[in-house]
Amino acid sequence: MGIVTADITTTVDGFGAAADQSFEHPFGSLDHLRLHAWQIDHRDDNPDEAAGILRAGAFIMGRNMFSPGRGEWDLAWRGWWGEEPPYRAPVFVLTHHEREPLEMAGGTTFHFVTGGIEDALDRAREAAGDANVAIAGGASTVNAYLAAGLIDELRWHVAPLVSGLTEGSRLFEGVPSSDLVPVASRTTPYVTHLTYRRT
Amino acid sequence: MGIVTADITTTVDGFGAAADQSFEHPFGSLDHLRLHAWQIDHRDDNPDEAAGILRAGAFIMGRNMFSPGRGEWDLAWRGWWGEEPPYRAPVFVLTHHEREPLEMAGGTTFHFVTGGIEDALDRAREAAGDANVAIAGGASTVNAYLAAGLIDELRWHVAPLVSGLTEGSRLFEGVPSSDLVPVASRTTPYVTHLTYRRT
Repeated sequence: MGIVTADITTTVDGFGAAADQSFEHPFGSLDHLRLHAWQIDHRDDNPDEAAGILRAGAFIMGRNMFSPGRGEWDLAWRGWWGEEPPYRAPVFVLTHHEREPLEMAGGTTFHFVTGGIEDALDRAREAAGDANVAIAGGASTVNAYLAAGLIDELRWHVAPLVSGLTEGSRLFEGVPSSDLVPVASRTTPYVTHLTYRRT
Repeated sequence: MGIVTADITTTVDGFGAAADQSFEHPFGSLDHLRLHAWQIDHRDDNPDEAAGILRAGAFIMGRNMFSPGRGEWDLAWRGWWGEEPPYRAPVFVLTHHEREPLEMAGGTTFHFVTGGIEDALDRAREAAGDANVAIAGGASTVNAYLAAGLIDELRWHVAPLVSGLTEGSRLFEGVPSSDLVPVASRTTPYVTHLTYRRT
């Protein structure tokens, strides 16, 4: 059986997004281009880490990562990634609002899970078979799985900027006091990659 | 002229101390032995980083790092480090309450500075001569110097634990949105050392 991984990019102070997310500003007032410069402009410095994000047999993401909308679904919304998303595997979207599965080109199908994080993980594990399940984000979803002790390997990509924020989606927020096992770190000009395993 | 460095050990969520600091619990409810295990029990894994903390011609620290007391001085208090502190150089303590300098054995003299962080830095630079000035902590003092753009090299020692705290002395809190230059990282079993320079 595979393991459960999570990839998340944050500022040095742990923010993955500001609170004021919208269609125009998917990360709110947090500067997405600075936060994700390592993936957008400097991917050649970070080929393994960038590819690793998509190396899984199934994915789980929070509703707020899938959609700028809240509440009842706007069925015209089909995700941020166009008609052929890069996941090429089942993606389980955590939500409080039921919706039929959404089959996209290239192998990605979005499944909408209203049964909570453990139900989503059960379904993702079954779909992944022997491959890993990846928690794709955002930070709040990673926190929920960390708090439940369900992440085997956390790959924290720390962008070299201070957010200046006081609220938003922040890694480790609400996670109870706990130990991690530091496994690896690597610094490139636009990101530091930190890998932790659970104890 | 030397540069201005800062060393600070925090949890992965940035806490250097909890809010409820006291004589009995200098770091409050944050487990000091887990936070500083890298310096206490596993120093042999981290000789350069541990030694680097004390490699400066003068030091600056916050009042709360020097003393568990607040408000007017208890003149019987001579710091946490016994009669021969490890600094062996002038140490400028930021405070709102005047106090005569305190000369200790082994070369350490504590000077109490009421003129603010820039005054303390001016005095420390003069005392250090060609050597570096080190901001010794805690996190709130490091934040004040970061916010003022006065730290050339930040050496952030990330202990592999989630604090579970919501308030306390937290690195980067109150620091405005800003970029850092990541220079190096190194993982050992009880700490990850991250070095940043200012832009």
